[in-house]
Amino acid sequence: MAQTTQVKAFGTEAADQDLREMTIVRREVTASDVEIDILYCGVCHSDLHTARNDWGGSMYPVVPGHEIIGRVTKVGDAVSKYKIGDLVGVGCLVDSCRTCESCQKDLEQYCLNGSVGTYNGKDKFLGGHTFGGYSEKVVVDENYVLRVPENLDIKAVAPLLCAGITTWSPLKHWNAGPGSKVAVIGLGGLGHMAIKLAKGLGAEVTLFSRSTNKIEDAKKLGADTVVISTDPDQMKSVAGKFDLIIDTVPYDHDVNPYVTTLSVSGTLVLVGYIGKMATALNTVPMIMGRKAVAASVIGGIKETQEMLDFCGEHNIVSDVEMITMQNINEAYERMLKSDVKYRFVIDMASLKK
Amino acid sequence: MAQTTQVKAFGTEAADQDLREMTIVRREVTASDVEIDILYCGVCHSDLHTARNDWGGSMYPVVPGHEIIGRVTKVGDAVSKYKIGDLVGVGCLVDSCRTCESCQKDLEQYCLNGSVGTYNGKDKFLGGHTFGGYSEKVVVDENYVLRVPENLDIKAVAPLLCAGITTWSPLKHWNAGPGSKVAVIGLGGLGHMAIKLAKGLGAEVTLFSRSTNKIEDAKKLGADTVVISTDPDQMKSVAGKFDLIIDTVPYDHDVNPYVTTLSVSGTLVLVGYIGKMATALNTVPMIMGRKAVAASVIGGIKETQEMLDFCGEHNIVSDVEMITMQNINEAYERMLKSDVKYRFVIDMASLKK
Ligand SMILES: [Zn+2]
Ligand SMILES: [Zn+2]
Ligand SMILES: [Zn+2]
Ligand SMILES: [Zn+2]
Repeated sequence: MAQTTQVKAFGTEAADQDLREMTIVRREVTASDVEIDILYCGVCHSDLHTARNDWGGSMYPVVPGHEIIGRVTKVGDAVSKYKIGDLVGVGCLVDSCRTCESCQKDLEQYCLNGSVGTYNGKDKFLGGHTFGGYSEKVVVDENYVLRVPENLDIKAVAPLLCAGITTWSPLKHWNAGPGSKVAVIGLGGLGHMAIKLAKGLGAEVTLFSRSTNKIEDAKKLGADTVVISTDPDQMKSVAGKFDLIIDTVPYDHDVNPYVTTLSVSGTLVLVGYIGKMATALNTVPMIMGRKAVAASVIGGIKETQEMLDFCGEHNIVSDVEMITMQNINEAYERMLKSDVKYRFVIDMASLKK
Repeated sequence: MAQTTQVKAFGTEAADQDLREMTIVRREVTASDVEIDILYCGVCHSDLHTARNDWGGSMYPVVPGHEIIGRVTKVGDAVSKYKIGDLVGVGCLVDSCRTCESCQKDLEQYCLNGSVGTYNGKDKFLGGHTFGGYSEKVVVDENYVLRVPENLDIKAVAPLLCAGITTWSPLKHWNAGPGSKVAVIGLGGLGHMAIKLAKGLGAEVTLFSRSTNKIEDAKKLGADTVVISTDPDQMKSVAGKFDLIIDTVPYDHDVNPYVTTLSVSGTLVLVGYIGKMATALNTVPMIMGRKAVAASVIGGIKETQEMLDFCGEHNIVSDVEMITMQNINEAYERMLKSDVKYRFVIDMASLKK
């Protein structure tokens, strides 16, 4: 049987129960593994949805957390990329098949044989399912571990591993950069990173918001303009303007009004909402401007590293509110009300006390 | 007042009337114009829809026709590209603003100030509206005239000017070529050109069809495979397969089953249906593979010329059924029943008798 160690974690035994302290096991490092002492873990909407089985398929106990920052405490014999003491991160994936067309193209997030989620994935070492970053330590194959730039405020780096890469990947895939006009719909965890990263890439950045009370914050984050999407005149004023729209809205909504604000050959990318849409597309504005509606999820390991390096160079981190592990249930309630600017991060020292 | 000549044409005075012979005027060539004696004109669904005002906005009399092949009979003083006797074509556009971002990028079809349609466009020379290719002659600015390869069966070249470029443009924009897997939905005027051009470009080509009776024809046209879209097992067998789907279906339909057959980063492009869709998108298969739904209309002048040159090199033309001008009303009825393989082309000698 595989060697294991017990570690403290925070998780839930059932969809209707609060998260509480529990003990889980981590494997001993295999040849290619890195053991990480977790310092910070960001709190993602997926954490809450998985804990509460909102999407179905949750396996209990659920130990969420896929925005992990920590230091290497042990390395396997064959590990070449990391050494003890290195500052590292782990995002949404801890493994994938490595052989399919997607994996071969550094698109592990689209692994055709199913990538392994950092939590609620299939644990091929110990059986059962994987446990996430709400824990003292995690053991991950070095190929799915990211290097974190030491110059950044590392607690604020944690959300880059999910919220950051989720917006970075479409920004890069659809060529956001100097001269391009990017709009972001929604100002939450994803939206605030989309603004910072698009701005960092040199694009002109607009936030679409339903209310005027986000204008000041959006501009502080780097938005050049805020368009109030409920104001028809403002919407008309940006008709045909944007090369790329990153739509971070996490619930079903009508994208047609935004499609009309795309430029010729522009693309609207859904990154927040997973499910059936209620409102169908009108192809008229699409066909008259070669416009596209697409969707995208997180990013590959290589591009996640590129994003972290880019953030190191451009001093980009998330805006975070620190919490203790013990406050996670309250944080979930606040997150549901969008009462956070813009991401909760757990100081994992609180679990170790 | 501008100098004009009278020419015979075929058109209709009202949405509910048959097309009949009439006289229209053409301008004398200005410095940059080319006068063309029309030899052949393809019959497009748009001709019928405009004649019958199906989309609204038709200006009468309507003289349809935007798949024009002819020979140059006169050139303006400043014309440099063409000389008398040259074999030329005119497609869906006879002018555009030439200064907007789209025009500057050779995307006249998406001219931000409105391109001028070959018929039912605004005639800036004579006032009123433009008249299409169901006529003896047409006068067009040389910049909107195409050179037709002399080696091709020129009557079968006519449909390349609309059906051809409508499928060529998305094939090129989304990089169809050797190694890529292209599917075509629907086997009509657009669909049969999509198959030929995708095959010519070196792609592996599949036709989606609702019935088995198109298999033989599709393979003759160059399709490697035919998938019967009403057969769930066949649909399942191509899940995640296609890099690009050219959807030529001219009526509203549910695209979700086809989206699941896109590969990672694949795009489905609507080229046949203009209007509101009844069925909304399911973002789940899209987000799990960075898939997109887009739409596209005809193509620019430069890429139309590239397509014609390519067809000259690869000996690609449309499959046509020749008709006389006097048979146009009957041809419209047959076209409505998809009773044509695959495009009617009018022998314009019939008008000159
Ligand atoms: Zn997440
Ligand atoms: Zn894979
Ligand atoms: Zn046409
Ligand atoms: Zn223009």
